[in-house]
Amino acid sequence: MTDLLWPGDDRAGDLFTDAAVLTAMVTVEQAWLSALVEAGIAPPEARASLTGLLTPSDADDIAAGAEAGGNPVIPLVGLLRGRLGPGAAASRWLHRGLTSQDVLDTALMLCLRDTVDRIRDELRAQAAALAGLTDRHRATVMSGRTLTQHAVPVAFGLKAATWLAGLLDAAEDLEAVGVRLPVQLGGAAGTLAGPVQLARLARARAPERTALELTDHLAAALRLRPAPPWHTTRTTVTRAGDALVRCTDAYGRIGNDVLTLSRPEIGELAEPARTGRGGSSTMPQKVNPVLSVLLRRAALVAPGLGGQLHLAAAEARDERPDGAWHAEWSALRLLARRTAVAASQATELLAGLQVDADRMRATAEAAAPELLAEARSLAELSGDPAAAPTDVGGYLGSTDLLVDAVLERAASYLKGAG
Amino acid sequence: MTDLLWPGDDRAGDLFTDAAVLTAMVTVEQAWLSALVEAGIAPPEARASLTGLLTPSDADDIAAGAEAGGNPVIPLVGLLRGRLGPGAAASRWLHRGLTSQDVLDTALMLCLRDTVDRIRDELRAQAAALAGLTDRHRATVMSGRTLTQHAVPVAFGLKAATWLAGLLDAAEDLEAVGVRLPVQLGGAAGTLAGPVQLARLARARAPERTALELTDHLAAALRLRPAPPWHTTRTTVTRAGDALVRCTDAYGRIGNDVLTLSRPEIGELAEPARTGRGGSSTMPQKVNPVLSVLLRRAALVAPGLGGQLHLAAAEARDERPDGAWHAEWSALRLLARRTAVAASQATELLAGLQVDADRMRATAEAAAPELLAEARSLAELSGDPAAAPTDVGGYLGSTDLLVDAVLERAASYLKGAG
Amino acid sequence: MTDLLWPGDDRAGDLFTDAAVLTAMVTVEQAWLSALVEAGIAPPEARASLTGLLTPSDADDIAAGAEAGGNPVIPLVGLLRGRLGPGAAASRWLHRGLTSQDVLDTALMLCLRDTVDRIRDELRAQAAALAGLTDRHRATVMSGRTLTQHAVPVAFGLKAATWLAGLLDAAEDLEAVGVRLPVQLGGAAGTLAGPVQLARLARARAPERTALELTDHLAAALRLRPAPPWHTTRTTVTRAGDALVRCTDAYGRIGNDVLTLSRPEIGELAEPARTGRGGSSTMPQKVNPVLSVLLRRAALVAPGLGGQLHLAAAEARDERPDGAWHAEWSALRLLARRTAVAASQATELLAGLQVDADRMRATAEAAAPELLAEARSLAELSGDPAAAPTDVGGYLGSTDLLVDAVLERAASYLKGAG
Amino acid sequence: MTDLLWPGDDRAGDLFTDAAVLTAMVTVEQAWLSALVEAGIAPPEARASLTGLLTPSDADDIAAGAEAGGNPVIPLVGLLRGRLGPGAAASRWLHRGLTSQDVLDTALMLCLRDTVDRIRDELRAQAAALAGLTDRHRATVMSGRTLTQHAVPVAFGLKAATWLAGLLDAAEDLEAVGVRLPVQLGGAAGTLAGPVQLARLARARAPERTALELTDHLAAALRLRPAPPWHTTRTTVTRAGDALVRCTDAYGRIGNDVLTLSRPEIGELAEPARTGRGGSSTMPQKVNPVLSVLLRRAALVAPGLGGQLHLAAAEARDERPDGAWHAEWSALRLLARRTAVAASQATELLAGLQVDADRMRATAEAAAPELLAEARSLAELSGDPAAAPTDVGGYLGSTDLLVDAVLERAASYLKGAG
Repeated sequence: MTDLLWPGDDRAGDLFTDAAVLTAMVTVEQAWLSALVEAGIAPPEARASLTGLLTPSDADDIAAGAEAGGNPVIPLVGLLRGRLGPGAAASRWLHRGLTSQDVLDTALMLCLRDTVDRIRDELRAQAAALAGLTDRHRATVMSGRTLTQHAVPVAFGLKAATWLAGLLDAAEDLEAVGVRLPVQLGGAAGTLAGPVQLARLARARAPERTALELTDHLAAALRLRPAPPWHTTRTTVTRAGDALVRCTDAYGRIGNDVLTLSRPEIGELAEPARTGRGGSSTMPQKVNPVLSVLLRRAALVAPGLGGQLHLAAAEARDERPDGAWHAEWSALRLLARRTAVAASQATELLAGLQVDADRMRATAEAAAPELLAEARSLAELSGDPAAAPTDVGGYLGSTDLLVDAVLERAASYLKGAG
Repeated sequence: MTDLLWPGDDRAGDLFTDAAVLTAMVTVEQAWLSALVEAGIAPPEARASLTGLLTPSDADDIAAGAEAGGNPVIPLVGLLRGRLGPGAAASRWLHRGLTSQDVLDTALMLCLRDTVDRIRDELRAQAAALAGLTDRHRATVMSGRTLTQHAVPVAFGLKAATWLAGLLDAAEDLEAVGVRLPVQLGGAAGTLAGPVQLARLARARAPERTALELTDHLAAALRLRPAPPWHTTRTTVTRAGDALVRCTDAYGRIGNDVLTLSRPEIGELAEPARTGRGGSSTMPQKVNPVLSVLLRRAALVAPGLGGQLHLAAAEARDERPDGAWHAEWSALRLLARRTAVAASQATELLAGLQVDADRMRATAEAAAPELLAEARSLAELSGDPAAAPTDVGGYLGSTDLLVDAVLERAASYLKGAG
Repeated sequence: MTDLLWPGDDRAGDLFTDAAVLTAMVTVEQAWLSALVEAGIAPPEARASLTGLLTPSDADDIAAGAEAGGNPVIPLVGLLRGRLGPGAAASRWLHRGLTSQDVLDTALMLCLRDTVDRIRDELRAQAAALAGLTDRHRATVMSGRTLTQHAVPVAFGLKAATWLAGLLDAAEDLEAVGVRLPVQLGGAAGTLAGPVQLARLARARAPERTALELTDHLAAALRLRPAPPWHTTRTTVTRAGDALVRCTDAYGRIGNDVLTLSRPEIGELAEPARTGRGGSSTMPQKVNPVLSVLLRRAALVAPGLGGQLHLAAAEARDERPDGAWHAEWSALRLLARRTAVAASQATELLAGLQVDADRMRATAEAAAPELLAEARSLAELSGDPAAAPTDVGGYLGSTDLLVDAVLERAASYLKGAG
Repeated sequence: MTDLLWPGDDRAGDLFTDAAVLTAMVTVEQAWLSALVEAGIAPPEARASLTGLLTPSDADDIAAGAEAGGNPVIPLVGLLRGRLGPGAAASRWLHRGLTSQDVLDTALMLCLRDTVDRIRDELRAQAAALAGLTDRHRATVMSGRTLTQHAVPVAFGLKAATWLAGLLDAAEDLEAVGVRLPVQLGGAAGTLAGPVQLARLARARAPERTALELTDHLAAALRLRPAPPWHTTRTTVTRAGDALVRCTDAYGRIGNDVLTLSRPEIGELAEPARTGRGGSSTMPQKVNPVLSVLLRRAALVAPGLGGQLHLAAAEARDERPDGAWHAEWSALRLLARRTAVAASQATELLAGLQVDADRMRATAEAAAPELLAEARSLAELSGDPAAAPTDVGGYLGSTDLLVDAVLERAASYLKGAG
């Protein structure tokens, strides 16, 4: 899967592709079938491997068949049963006790986990790169700009520190999401009636409890968290969405600053040099800040996708929703892939960001009269006009301490995440 | 391209697929190359056919190459030039005078036109079906419900008429979009400097005018509207987006009503019967109103996509934007495909909608005391309590005239569109 | 009503304030009461003036009473009846045949019309100002920037022309909205059953037709368009919303350009000078581009509001919606006021925008090697490298003709609107 | 402040009103002035009480004055200085070292804390009410509905448990927000240069550290969390927004279920009876489920507001943003008030929700053939058709255990929150 209209999409690789979702759904069915056999609910002869039953060319058929029931699980189960052989025990026992939402929700969690893992790696790399920039440039003076105009001097290291703080916030939330991802197992209407009935038919002693043990078993097999059914309680999805948007929020802020500061009239930052990057189809001289452009693109798009997940959560109804659930899948996938692409681009941008410290200082010095106006007014207030700094480097406030604090936070994060 | 997570996606066929966008971009490059030759700007030996130069397997390379310059036109032009042969005149003249945005914007307009054409066909079919329902059921009395509770009697035909009015509104806007779709030709920064320079080098008498004639020529070749460059004035895109959302708004309203009225406790409407439609993966008895579920899904998603197009328009900057443009393409494609899918589903739903007129009447009669409460209070107001209707069919207001008015509007639309 | 958290809100004056909505609702009730009397449905003694019955201090009571029925019409009618005197004929006849949605929807249309009128005036003023800038600066050469970097030369007049084109597009849609604003008259469930019943009780010859005539009458009295009931067909609202967002889209684009070009390192544009404007609470030197900042703010917010109107339209259900309608009012009001404020700010910005033509030229000349790189490559392509322009003013393409075309469009608009 | 177009708005009382924001800003200025004096930076004679300096009638002037500088702090400081007396030490020292964003951001946090506190109280009341319903109805059998159709039996207590789970999730996130709300203190560009300079002028030994101590001091005085400057790192705001939307997501889901189940044809739930609630302006019989209608309204609106906060975060730029910050305030206020209103309505709804257990059972029994179809198919699978339950109460799965688990979670929350 490549998305011609989302340049850089290939950076997300196979995360959440149709193939990945399909594989994840088969993984869920496999784990469930094995769980039924191991719990003594399905007979031993129902044990079977689903590996290799599907071929890539099945994806289109399953996609096409998804409309009839409103989701891709129904045609998938049909196909798997056919391949297992209509009379086979495995065929009869496959999917028993589940509802399609159990399979799809759990499969989406598996895909989401892969995405979260990927983005966490990127966040670590970004935090390391930014910690370096922050420390290295803690004394690199530049114009601090507010509402686009010269304000007071800042250090580029402190700007980098605020970028870093945003990343650490996002990482914090994404870590929490990663450990929380739950299995979905509720049966037709979230009561586990199917699994309980199967356990009862198998003469389990406490079938109601057996069904919950199956949840634990399934969760363990898939390395997810056991959880009560959440067919209509979509907090997991909105929390994941919010954490992903928090990442693109952080990238957007960085991208916007790089776009501004790499304008030729400012020229304080430049994207990593790479042959062929940033070219134009007609202007040979062009070196566009493409990574930042593409980060900004993601940041403009992600909040809307996050909002769609909330809307889908809010519009749940009955025991399983009549459209809101269906609106969620594609938004979650898009948000996951868009964020993964942005994360990868952000890592590359930050790892190679070029800082022109000389130009920063030169601009700040030329703007010293403006940048030190506040300092002068405070000195006058204290009746000591001569106490105002005359050098832009002399009015950096608590920059060093602020930088230290963020670096400490980053170090703790990088150690913990290691 | 199939989207496993958007059941029904295959209804949109190849509209706006990567392959379709790629083909459209080649079509634009071809038309421009021919225009240059025909205008005497490029030499006759630059004439070449681009047909067949690309194979489907190129799509991935172009997608992967799109990131370096931020859009897919740059690798496309590179590939085409390579295939034409580095020394060939066609290779040197290809794309000259254009900027990548010219090609991509125009290609998107070609894809959009195909989508609009498709949806217009669906709207016509829907209007015809709904006009039939409206007329047939103008006297089919049912409970009118407001804020979910029994209000006063209505006719199902009038409900259908309000659905129809929403569709006609959407169709009106979509027709306007269809005739307005413009070619994009601005050159590097929207001045047409490249084309003018080429015309000048070719000794054109009024090169500034020649460039505009090339716009006309290109538009005619592609059956689009000539227009001044709109690199940063994105009205065309937001108008198209708004019109598409207007379609899903109308479908959402219909879907919501069908979902409500096909609840077993109400049972006044049912989706078209089709073997295998609406099934569940675990409950053999299930016949879910899947088309309506999927319509509702689209209606929940489309407003956010429309909003993204506006945001992209508002965030344009400079002569060509630094991310906002890039955020637009995928949102436009998604909105177009989602709407095309919904349109096709709506046609099927409306063509086969099952109306249980007996149950409608029975429910209304059982609720007559509530449904006629207003009528009684008005009769009391006039001092003539006995004048209140006692039959729900006797309190339908101007339904007949309202129905006639909508049918007349539909007839005029269907005739005009024919 | 002032909104402390939306600086500039007072520019919208009393548009769509609670007081304005209240007044509009009374106006609708008045027009309906008069229509009933004039049609001979209500007796002559029911004629009454509602003017002065309410005082500003009633607003809070009505607002507080609005929750019980879910809208402010019910407490309003109760209050008016009380003030008219319980036994009075006018009290008994007030509101008869209407539903609360008829009153509120129509009142919102009255408020919307005032907003549209106001914004149209602003758009005219803006178009005139921009036409002036466009014409005056058609030869003011500056760097054309794409993806933030120097691209090819442009004229500031052409940039202004693209701003102008966006405004003219918005004006076009807003004009259409203005003439389309409809009265809402449907009665309890959109059948006009109440009015028909009243007409029947009054021995009208064709009561079904009388009800429609009452619609015409009401529309004429309120200077709105007669229309069939649109309780659940919200095209009017979404079209209005889309047109308003189109305005802020255009303002956002302008604001973004001014913000960029008024950065001190670029310094090509400046906001109108006004004492005290753009100051900071701590930095005495500051002159922030506040108008552009506030325009950008509106442009970031409006697309979401427009999307909410579409969502509300799509989520309509039954004969009157169960929450979607209620979600619409506040979004419409906010969008209307935000747009009116932005429109007023945009007029001020454009009327006094300061253009530093010298600095534009100086920057462009300094960047000539980059800005003319495309021209050189085209000249080389044609085998005539010496034909490349050496002055940035010599590579402006069809600017003059493009400028003429927009100016002609603006002139036609300004004449038509006059 | 009442909002006529948001019925129920008065439930939010003075949370986040203009008056509340104004008071909060004065509180921040007061705390800072005191801190300067106590730290020995400002002279003792600068100590002053700001209480009573402003009157309600100042609000309009401040609002009107807010546009010039883009925020309300500048006119507020001007007014306070005037009232303190131009020559007074307090007048000169007021606001020194702060930037307007410090004051406004901190004031918004104070308002937000009040809102969070209020909503937490409501959530506790809701959890208690829902825990009661959950426990009481753990054996109240009803039809489980999926995609609007009969699925398998459920207990109403389990439905209530899923509502409860959503509330507990929201409460969890809101608790976290409540303890995290930070003070904002950064000075003109987030370096604390102003405070450091003031400390230096006052001969502090380690002025860089003194500035951070001032942050601690200010935070303690305002009962907020000390934090590094977050002018352009808006995680606090988006986290708060996400948590608020999580509340309305939970309310929306509840509202949707109540709207569905209180339809007359279903009649399993009813809103609390209260005289005059749910009436219509024209239909005397009407008892509309108004609370649920209004909850649904909030749930449709909140996701868009949450998305706006993310967009504002992502569009931050420079050391203080050029419009994105300004777009945030009103969205945050609206989201806070809308959620507080919904929370209050949800408490009332849940406290008095009427459950018709007899009708639930009757409907389920009538639908037994459908509701037990899955059970039969599983029994057949196991070769024991006779083992299928024949009573809908016999197919409730692990309901009891699932209910216990949620009740335990609720008990722990209620104890912890107490």
